[in-house]
Amino acid sequence: MSVKIKTLEWIGDIDGFLRLIDQRVLPHVLPRRLVYMDCYDVPTLVEAIRMLAVRGAPAIGITAGYGMSLAAQKINDHTDLAQALQALRKQADVLASSRPTAVNLFWSLDRMMTCAATFIADNSGASIIDLQRALLLEARAIHTEDRQMCQAIGEHGEKLIPEGGSILTHCNAGALATGGIGTALAPMYVAHEHGKPFHVYADETRPLLQGARLTAWELLQGGIDVTLICDNMAGMLMKQGKIDTVITGADRIAANGDTANKIGTYGLSILAAAHDIPFYIAAPSSTFDLKLSCGNQIPIEQRSPNEVTSFGDRPTAPEDVKVYNPAFDVVDASKITAIITEKGIIENPDADKIAAHLG
Amino acid sequence: MSVKIKTLEWIGDIDGFLRLIDQRVLPHVLPRRLVYMDCYDVPTLVEAIRMLAVRGAPAIGITAGYGMSLAAQKINDHTDLAQALQALRKQADVLASSRPTAVNLFWSLDRMMTCAATFIADNSGASIIDLQRALLLEARAIHTEDRQMCQAIGEHGEKLIPEGGSILTHCNAGALATGGIGTALAPMYVAHEHGKPFHVYADETRPLLQGARLTAWELLQGGIDVTLICDNMAGMLMKQGKIDTVITGADRIAANGDTANKIGTYGLSILAAAHDIPFYIAAPSSTFDLKLSCGNQIPIEQRSPNEVTSFGDRPTAPEDVKVYNPAFDVVDASKITAIITEKGIIENPDADKIAAHLG
Repeated sequence: MSVKIKTLEWIGDIDGFLRLIDQRVLPHVLPRRLVYMDCYDVPTLVEAIRMLAVRGAPAIGITAGYGMSLAAQKINDHTDLAQALQALRKQADVLASSRPTAVNLFWSLDRMMTCAATFIADNSGASIIDLQRALLLEARAIHTEDRQMCQAIGEHGEKLIPEGGSILTHCNAGALATGGIGTALAPMYVAHEHGKPFHVYADETRPLLQGARLTAWELLQGGIDVTLICDNMAGMLMKQGKIDTVITGADRIAANGDTANKIGTYGLSILAAAHDIPFYIAAPSSTFDLKLSCGNQIPIEQRSPNEVTSFGDRPTAPEDVKVYNPAFDVVDASKITAIITEKGIIENPDADKIAAHLG
Repeated sequence: MSVKIKTLEWIGDIDGFLRLIDQRVLPHVLPRRLVYMDCYDVPTLVEAIRMLAVRGAPAIGITAGYGMSLAAQKINDHTDLAQALQALRKQADVLASSRPTAVNLFWSLDRMMTCAATFIADNSGASIIDLQRALLLEARAIHTEDRQMCQAIGEHGEKLIPEGGSILTHCNAGALATGGIGTALAPMYVAHEHGKPFHVYADETRPLLQGARLTAWELLQGGIDVTLICDNMAGMLMKQGKIDTVITGADRIAANGDTANKIGTYGLSILAAAHDIPFYIAAPSSTFDLKLSCGNQIPIEQRSPNEVTSFGDRPTAPEDVKVYNPAFDVVDASKITAIITEKGIIENPDADKIAAHLG
């Protein structure tokens, strides 16, 4: 694969730590240098997630898995297993409080807690070190599976990229958002590897410019032809016939297919429908939250006005102006041509098809 | 009227100069201070227009009118009138080259040249000073008429603002874009003066943030309730039922009603139609270009990639990324609920209604 970016990496064994690319300073670094953030404890990880040093639903899920490994490290060797489980539960709650919308975070924490509870139930005489080992193994499994899921999404989605076509994407659902080659960008990396010609338009994605800073950067690193636009230019490009398909990632998908993703995705889905352009969501199956029947049950994170009223330390608006700054919006399932997961493609998604697809 | 902003002002008599608010540094100035730019010659004015120190179709028109007055100042007293007319034509061409899309620029230059030609034809024995006086009078007339047009647009448009409703606007078509209380913002200023309650959402308007920097600033100055959003949030607000009406300005309107305005306006028109929200264009009749039968004949200015890839002196994207940066897009007449001019309201605009309206 053409992507060599190590968005997150566990360094060492059960006494190790999580090394993240600090995405807040991308791409403003010295040529061929990256700024890393080494996380040795849960509070640092929570801060990294909250401040968007690491972001993207799948990457947040993996980070939370390793976070539980860091939590297990801090448990004293002489603690009994029931108390250890309680301590882990507390740290899982702390990690869960970091961001509200991406479901992969909760999915990963549930999986880590299930792993811990099962291990303890099955191994009553085990040591804390054994528990730590079991949890690190599970976190590594989440990471490895994510890498494989990205690859599978890429292979399924690649078929949807028209030869010589133009793809619009929003925010960053690439290598920097996952443990592998991304979700929305995975089909592009696979198509590029197959030698298929295509072009990408990347929405800059206000307010935090993940498209300009991250997607444009990683596609250029991967040798993919990309043009940066402001979010408000997408409509004009569609009208001009310059967009053949839209592919974005997802932060949470309800049982009926309604999909929360970065703010602006809803507007793109309406514009795509108005121009008869296929609109695809690419996400691993861990992004589905079947407990929610439809999209208006998905909690939407509201972020600080400062993200809109300043750039770096420079104000871009009157300091006393009111601001509305939701981080996500929800696309209606009816506007989604297909959802691409690691298991295949769900065309015209609805509750029945999604239930059948996820098995 | 609640607006006291002097966007542009001619200081002095025929030997005077044009004082502009330098809008590039708004709102980053000391409290209650503004940065002005005094223009004593045509090259400075052209630079002011090109670099967006002054912007907004009507304000550009007024500026160009005064520009011809500055051009007349530079003509030697002993020049004969035919040569003077030639010199003025040359300076009009220089001014016309400053920006391609807003038609008011060309309309104003034509009017100033017609004034000069008519004056010379009617007054063969006149002096250069007489010609200068005639041109300054004409430039002042353009300015005064613009102020009156803004007021009339405001009074017609005010009726379209629902009591307690929410209005979305894009870019800046306010006092800072005109010689008076604006075009798109004029109905809001009039409604506010009448004591009608309403709320404004202002799109920040990437890449140059005229909504964040200018619209939010001038509405706050006028005591109007305004909330700033990123451009990509408009769709979500519409879905939530938080937008009752959309009002924007225009840079050029073709004979059939197709309207060029700041990039992003086209997308808003599609979103508004999809949510059954009325979409209004407010512009003086000088914005119509009846020589163009439809919108795809309107030239669209392409601006520098730097506007998208950096903020101030800070890069926001990889420096080698390709950028598409059109300054305007074109709204189809079929998506416009009505056009508001100083003469009244053209509902469901088409070529016949527009021709009848303009008389």
